[in-house]
Amino acid sequence: MDSREVQTEVNSDPNREIHVYHLALDIGGSLAKLVYFTKDGDHFVDGEEGISPRKALETSNGSRNHPVLNGRLNFKKFETSKINDCLDFIKTMKLHLGGSQQHENPGSQPITIKATGGGAYKFADLFKERLGIVLDKEDEMDCLVAGANFLLEVVHREAFTYMGDQKQFVEIDQNDLYPYLLVNIGSGVGMIKVEGDGKFERVSGTSIGGGTFWGLGRLLTQCKSFDELLELSYRGNNRAVDMLVGDIYGGMDYAKIGLSSTAIASSFGKAISDNKEREDYKPEDMARSLLRMISNNIGQISYLNAVRFGLKRIFFGGFFIRRHPFTMDTLSVAVNFWSKGEAQAMFLRHEGFLGAMGAFMRSDKHGLKELLVNQVAQQTPTKFSFAVDKIHGPVDGELNGDESIECSVYAA
Amino acid sequence: MDSREVQTEVNSDPNREIHVYHLALDIGGSLAKLVYFTKDGDHFVDGEEGISPRKALETSNGSRNHPVLNGRLNFKKFETSKINDCLDFIKTMKLHLGGSQQHENPGSQPITIKATGGGAYKFADLFKERLGIVLDKEDEMDCLVAGANFLLEVVHREAFTYMGDQKQFVEIDQNDLYPYLLVNIGSGVGMIKVEGDGKFERVSGTSIGGGTFWGLGRLLTQCKSFDELLELSYRGNNRAVDMLVGDIYGGMDYAKIGLSSTAIASSFGKAISDNKEREDYKPEDMARSLLRMISNNIGQISYLNAVRFGLKRIFFGGFFIRRHPFTMDTLSVAVNFWSKGEAQAMFLRHEGFLGAMGAFMRSDKHGLKELLVNQVAQQTPTKFSFAVDKIHGPVDGELNGDESIECSVYAA
Repeated sequence: MDSREVQTEVNSDPNREIHVYHLALDIGGSLAKLVYFTKDGDHFVDGEEGISPRKALETSNGSRNHPVLNGRLNFKKFETSKINDCLDFIKTMKLHLGGSQQHENPGSQPITIKATGGGAYKFADLFKERLGIVLDKEDEMDCLVAGANFLLEVVHREAFTYMGDQKQFVEIDQNDLYPYLLVNIGSGVGMIKVEGDGKFERVSGTSIGGGTFWGLGRLLTQCKSFDELLELSYRGNNRAVDMLVGDIYGGMDYAKIGLSSTAIASSFGKAISDNKEREDYKPEDMARSLLRMISNNIGQISYLNAVRFGLKRIFFGGFFIRRHPFTMDTLSVAVNFWSKGEAQAMFLRHEGFLGAMGAFMRSDKHGLKELLVNQVAQQTPTKFSFAVDKIHGPVDGELNGDESIECSVYAA
Repeated sequence: MDSREVQTEVNSDPNREIHVYHLALDIGGSLAKLVYFTKDGDHFVDGEEGISPRKALETSNGSRNHPVLNGRLNFKKFETSKINDCLDFIKTMKLHLGGSQQHENPGSQPITIKATGGGAYKFADLFKERLGIVLDKEDEMDCLVAGANFLLEVVHREAFTYMGDQKQFVEIDQNDLYPYLLVNIGSGVGMIKVEGDGKFERVSGTSIGGGTFWGLGRLLTQCKSFDELLELSYRGNNRAVDMLVGDIYGGMDYAKIGLSSTAIASSFGKAISDNKEREDYKPEDMARSLLRMISNNIGQISYLNAVRFGLKRIFFGGFFIRRHPFTMDTLSVAVNFWSKGEAQAMFLRHEGFLGAMGAFMRSDKHGLKELLVNQVAQQTPTKFSFAVDKIHGPVDGELNGDESIECSVYAA
């Protein structure tokens, strides 16, 4: 996305005044993710008006007279290789200035924004020089876990299973959420055993992740974008390049160990033919084989770690998935196959924004606090809660990674 | 290898008369492996002459007057896609006729040869039609385990460790061999928990194996052979295509979770650059990255299975390895890294011939029996033992997959 597009988007609803009060960043190896809060309006509620009924009761704890800000959590992504587009966006939206109409940083106080991911280190100087922003670095794992816990605890219809083209939202019992395995599939893959808020351990990972899909895919197919490669894989057939059990066994199953003739014996194992060159294989078939190889491998290593630590639930996040049906199905089938049905793969609607969401949650939310004090609350609040319910943007349709969810900020 | 080369080899030592008394096959997805016994001479020993001193005592169990045949176990491989070369070799060597000078199958009895691997099914008709051979199919896992157990129990200097360019032979205490994890890396990878002779279970596997290295490697580099690709990888540098932790963290380690700046965050994750095409990456760098990705992944999944079943030793076999230092080092480092030094990777000198060796051991060794009865033994033996000691062929040098080991056949 270049800055022209951003401009278009910002201007697409000229009647809508955008107030940005809070921003956090997660800059990974391939993608930079933003989460920011915008206020649609503010009012002091008596009761549940405009608030998620489910969460209001839990959050207000019986007493319903709390200062409340209604607004949106917004999610946006950029390619890390085009990090300047991200800076342009922040500048254009004046996100770093709290969305005010001031043109430059007015005070002597440097503006601080929570940031996580390797890019928080790599691009620290760039943010300082171009926008006067100091990136306040938060640990990547801390943020991933904080973000996942927040989304799983607070957002309605966040988790779902996906198998055989069936998507099913899962109601998470808050008392039965932990422990779980969090598998974050970014450029590489991190696997974290989560036992509670701030209670976690990185137990494993693999270098065969989203960057491998995109990198190898680009070398093999000449695709120009990750999404184009995903789209391509949808049309392919992996049988043309993978060596199946049936290819080795003359069309038969290897029944004794439960391998059907269509099971993949060797990924890309059929691409060794002397009579064929790269040009003889269809790009879509190679993309399909690659996606299946990587998804299956991640599913298998995830399961092995889940079984090792006695975890029944595996949540997959990270931008590799992109709600792509075949990817989710392959991950689910792999977990199901290797666990003989005992472990279950689950997915998160905001899969790509766990780290950014966590960074957002870990900040002191200064702008929001001030806003609550000035416009809503009678007294300075000591604690914030977010209540999130309705989703804006497509629930089951195509995902472009940019969407928002309605939310309310409570102060107590 | 074409049949002309076979001819050359057979004629290369015209003074050496070759007697072939036994043959077994393992026909996998990529390679067909042969093990056959040739008799160099035969005599009735009183004592230990010509026999491995270590094994003789164990095998003869105190009594040293046993019929003994001295000879060699020979190992040979062909590409499965050129299976006719394998048939030509068998025909030229008259292996299927017991090495006699007869030109065709003389009797009405069909000749039966033990065979394992998927090709034993796939090529059954071909062997019948072209050579009149009936392939007596043995289960692949049964043979792998029987072969590995035989080699580990009987062959001196069969197992070794390899790390940091240090190769070290391991003396296996026969009482402490089991249980172990056998990882067979062929086109695909099988992982077997071995608890004793005939006592085993296939516990895992991965489709990312030797066929993946060769298939993807061929697509990326246009190499003409597996060995050329391996050779190429030796000269490459994976940093050019892999995304390292330092690439994400601006040159820094991610110290909190123990990842150094040179650790691979994402295999092929650097090949996503918009400014570079496939031609801009060196073939050797891609080959190197591929080899490291696959070896590391196999090491990791192996370790996870070893830890799951409480196995301290992991033996790696299969034709993927080919005693390639970098491959062995990567597998060893992966096992060492993930197990925090608790598990150990070991390799087998006859890594590629486990299945063929197992098929050989599982046959009734009719030809050998007859030979012993006719030429050596006074009475029909009821039991055979192989004693194997000295190795012919390069111990530490380049491996071409074809070599022989001296051995003795005992009858009791």
